[in-house]
Amino acid sequence: MNRARLIAVARGDEPADLVLENAHVVNVFTGEVERADVTLAEGHIAGVGDHADAPAHKRVDLRGAFLAPAYIDAHIHLESTMLLPAEFARAVLPHGSACAVCDPHEIANVMGIEGIKLLMQLAEDVPFDFFFTLSSCVPATHMETSGASLSAADLETLIANPRIAAMAEMMNFPGVFMRFPEVLEKLEVAHRHGKLVDGHAPMLRGRDLNAYIAGGISSDHESTTIGEAQEKLARGMWIFIREGSTEKNLEALLPVVNPTTVARCCLVTDDRHPGELHELGHLNYNVHKAIGLGLDPVTAIRLATLNPASYFGLKCRGAIAPGYIADMQVLSDLGDGLLKPLAVYKDGMLAAKDGALALNITRPWPPDSALRTVNFPRCFNAGDFALNGSPHVRVIKVIPGQIVTGSFSANMPVVEGKLQSDVSQDILKLAVVERYTGKMGRSIGFVNGFGLKRGAIASSVAHDSHNLIAVGVDDSDLEIAFNRLAEMQGGLVAVKDGAVLAEVPLPVAGLMSLCSAMEVSRAVLRLNAVAHVELGCALGSPFMSLSFLALPVIPELKLTDKGLVDVAKFGFVPLDAGA
Amino acid sequence: MNRARLIAVARGDEPADLVLENAHVVNVFTGEVERADVTLAEGHIAGVGDHADAPAHKRVDLRGAFLAPAYIDAHIHLESTMLLPAEFARAVLPHGSACAVCDPHEIANVMGIEGIKLLMQLAEDVPFDFFFTLSSCVPATHMETSGASLSAADLETLIANPRIAAMAEMMNFPGVFMRFPEVLEKLEVAHRHGKLVDGHAPMLRGRDLNAYIAGGISSDHESTTIGEAQEKLARGMWIFIREGSTEKNLEALLPVVNPTTVARCCLVTDDRHPGELHELGHLNYNVHKAIGLGLDPVTAIRLATLNPASYFGLKCRGAIAPGYIADMQVLSDLGDGLLKPLAVYKDGMLAAKDGALALNITRPWPPDSALRTVNFPRCFNAGDFALNGSPHVRVIKVIPGQIVTGSFSANMPVVEGKLQSDVSQDILKLAVVERYTGKMGRSIGFVNGFGLKRGAIASSVAHDSHNLIAVGVDDSDLEIAFNRLAEMQGGLVAVKDGAVLAEVPLPVAGLMSLCSAMEVSRAVLRLNAVAHVELGCALGSPFMSLSFLALPVIPELKLTDKGLVDVAKFGFVPLDAGA
Repeated sequence: MNRARLIAVARGDEPADLVLENAHVVNVFTGEVERADVTLAEGHIAGVGDHADAPAHKRVDLRGAFLAPAYIDAHIHLESTMLLPAEFARAVLPHGSACAVCDPHEIANVMGIEGIKLLMQLAEDVPFDFFFTLSSCVPATHMETSGASLSAADLETLIANPRIAAMAEMMNFPGVFMRFPEVLEKLEVAHRHGKLVDGHAPMLRGRDLNAYIAGGISSDHESTTIGEAQEKLARGMWIFIREGSTEKNLEALLPVVNPTTVARCCLVTDDRHPGELHELGHLNYNVHKAIGLGLDPVTAIRLATLNPASYFGLKCRGAIAPGYIADMQVLSDLGDGLLKPLAVYKDGMLAAKDGALALNITRPWPPDSALRTVNFPRCFNAGDFALNGSPHVRVIKVIPGQIVTGSFSANMPVVEGKLQSDVSQDILKLAVVERYTGKMGRSIGFVNGFGLKRGAIASSVAHDSHNLIAVGVDDSDLEIAFNRLAEMQGGLVAVKDGAVLAEVPLPVAGLMSLCSAMEVSRAVLRLNAVAHVELGCALGSPFMSLSFLALPVIPELKLTDKGLVDVAKFGFVPLDAGA
Repeated sequence: MNRARLIAVARGDEPADLVLENAHVVNVFTGEVERADVTLAEGHIAGVGDHADAPAHKRVDLRGAFLAPAYIDAHIHLESTMLLPAEFARAVLPHGSACAVCDPHEIANVMGIEGIKLLMQLAEDVPFDFFFTLSSCVPATHMETSGASLSAADLETLIANPRIAAMAEMMNFPGVFMRFPEVLEKLEVAHRHGKLVDGHAPMLRGRDLNAYIAGGISSDHESTTIGEAQEKLARGMWIFIREGSTEKNLEALLPVVNPTTVARCCLVTDDRHPGELHELGHLNYNVHKAIGLGLDPVTAIRLATLNPASYFGLKCRGAIAPGYIADMQVLSDLGDGLLKPLAVYKDGMLAAKDGALALNITRPWPPDSALRTVNFPRCFNAGDFALNGSPHVRVIKVIPGQIVTGSFSANMPVVEGKLQSDVSQDILKLAVVERYTGKMGRSIGFVNGFGLKRGAIASSVAHDSHNLIAVGVDDSDLEIAFNRLAEMQGGLVAVKDGAVLAEVPLPVAGLMSLCSAMEVSRAVLRLNAVAHVELGCALGSPFMSLSFLALPVIPELKLTDKGLVDVAKFGFVPLDAGA
């Protein structure tokens, strides 16, 4: 950046690249809306004020429209959008976003440090500012086969990178307050390098919360009640108010924002599925909703602009002021206009206009290693999913819209000595296959709640280790589903009567697509429709529910590639309910 | 720090070093006062909340007293206190301060980078947290002989030091908006290393202000009117509200603090003379005054604790929360109790009690180079101050309590061809002697307003180059005054009838004492009394007024060792008013 030229333009001594005239500038410093002209040069904001007569190469008359800083998402998992960074940028720039701090937790579980580096590399030349946090809890547990394990020493190799904004959410909160040495080592890696550590402490209160924060953890996005958020804030945490596709806390937590606390709260998405990203938007949706819930519009915008920049110490971002990066959005009003920015500027360039991308964004191609992460030396056959044993089994009970499960026991039908799915009880076979070592290790259990009448659905998105998981009525459709996932090197698939009816290929680490948000959104929509109409599935989001059934840190009963896990006991239990 | 132990103490698993029970904790995050116990370990705060039953090696019952974070001064020139870091700490710890960000501008003008390093080194082991900013404008001008000149390359050698919190106030504001290359190079040194640049932009508004801020300058402490402060804040600057010994802006600027802007305002002192430091206090005086002017007490405390820490990114400081450095003060109430903390804790140790220091603080001895900065190869004699020329001369007019001067012309008496002081007109000889090169270069002029009836006063504190300056009725007392300053290697002195009546030795760079705040305070008091009573001086603070008469960047007429400066013309003018 030519600083001398920026200063000269601010003073009106040299022509600006662009003057945005007659704006109502949303000033997040004063909380006011200010009638002003804004001059731009060198990708930055030069002057704000009365600059109507400033020399300029180009002038745009905003005719009184609002000009707000572009959004910064302080916490999102890119993988939840199933999009590569370039496609994510294409999707969210028209919604007014220009920067995101991403926790690459999912790809880190599949590919380790190399996965994090891959995402960083794919984000590098995109006209959108990606920062990353360094995934702190890979793998989640040792009760599953994981694609990677990140030690403190591994994390230290990347922590000083200027694109690493913090150590990522420390999900192993008992590991902090119980002082597991390997957990404390990771904290010290961050502290030693002067980096923040993001938190993840659902329902943690009192002394355990004090102990967790004493570990040097400075934010939390897991509060679900106002009392919890207030306590965390009072103990020094920044509160990230989350409204994503899975977890929705905005309404419950908004009262934590008051004149004293406002500087330490942010609006974040955490996750946003491709369909919602495309249809509803990104942070503009959250800001609009916060205003609908009664928050002052300038304050709501501040929570998604200046505040995330302040928290992470991202300099010269999140406001419209001299020297700031020229990431801005033009809005017709501060109500429904937030949902449809008239124009978005990134680094002073017109990036989107009336909801359509106005920049050419090329999508870098991932290296072959990222496209080859499902390792099966042979195809599956139906016999691989046959199950012997006692017909009286433990059953995982899916609870619609939640990631916790229930459990109960049931008697399964037996054919030729083999346990079968039972559509009449809605208890179906659930299979998890390990994808990393080539040993094809697997375990098979039973799940209630999917409501499939026939066929199978399968996914390579299965938190946190992302082994392959499928639920199905018969073994031959399970066979076809797993083999198709292997062929696609990951994705989502619905199978009926021996044929693949619909699929969403996710060949990048088995987590992300090579397509656009609209393409992925449509494919997911079609897949869900097939699951509902053709297979008779009763769940609203069957693939979302499926993706959490292998996560052995969320109660109550889960299935990993190593077996059935009773989360309360933090250990394996037999399928046989009598054992 | 043993983080595992801190966490264990926070949880109550291991005994705390200390529990402060039954406190009313001033919570700067929530704005509330909270009934809580606070556990301490490893010099840090472990837990805050209900910890009455926590195991501990020691317990102190605060019986409902208030517990507030200790103060952080975001902007002070240590040299204005005339105290070395250890003595400063001894003076301000009892007033509730534990951290200061110091601009070593004065010693940098005398000794350059070595002077800054010297202060940093003298501060190193003191139980008080000194941070420094890197003096950006040394020397102020080239119209005087300076002890040092700091280039961008010089500053780059120190900028990455973790004790350097920012580039110091960029006083050369025209140099920024007029894009002087050497000024922009200094800004880039800071930006390249991710450090902030503090501002100094008195009365700067509009486009020039925009241009200055576009240089990447993020704070200002020079506003004197509310409109000026509001404009700077709206353009992105943090507002340091100054209330020092010289400049008092608190009352005028306090209205800039409102629920939206409160997170970006700080209370600072800028300068605090030793007497006021000792008698009135440090930031506790400013906080108390702000409350008296109507600010909510918790907010007032926040402006001098959490906010300065936030601005500089000083982690884990400025609040009472788990993991924070245990710098705290016990207060009987949040009114007059602020002026007299009952106890002060630094790093969890009792540092002061009832206004008295409770820690043993040793004072490191400065190296000989710092004690030998006045370089005269011979003594002065009265003839050195004789003045020929036209009796119609330009006269500097001192304005009481201000650092700007007026000017007028007058006719001086002539004796044996030499111009003389004239007590009847209150126009006295003013002499500035260059102290660095050994050449003893000097210039002589006339000043009105001191009111001396006899004798002379002299000082080695003379902004910004700190040459020696004296005002006197006759040449022989000027001779004695300068020779005494040389003997003392700097200081303040009052001379009458050939004898030194009072003095304050400032042997460290000619700026700072080797004594305590109380000793310096008493010596200055005595010196001023002598100037008033024995010499008949009419000015309230004659040495303060004297110290600004050689500063050629403040209007209107000044005298440097190189001659008389018309500041408006930014150039020299002859003493002869007719020339």
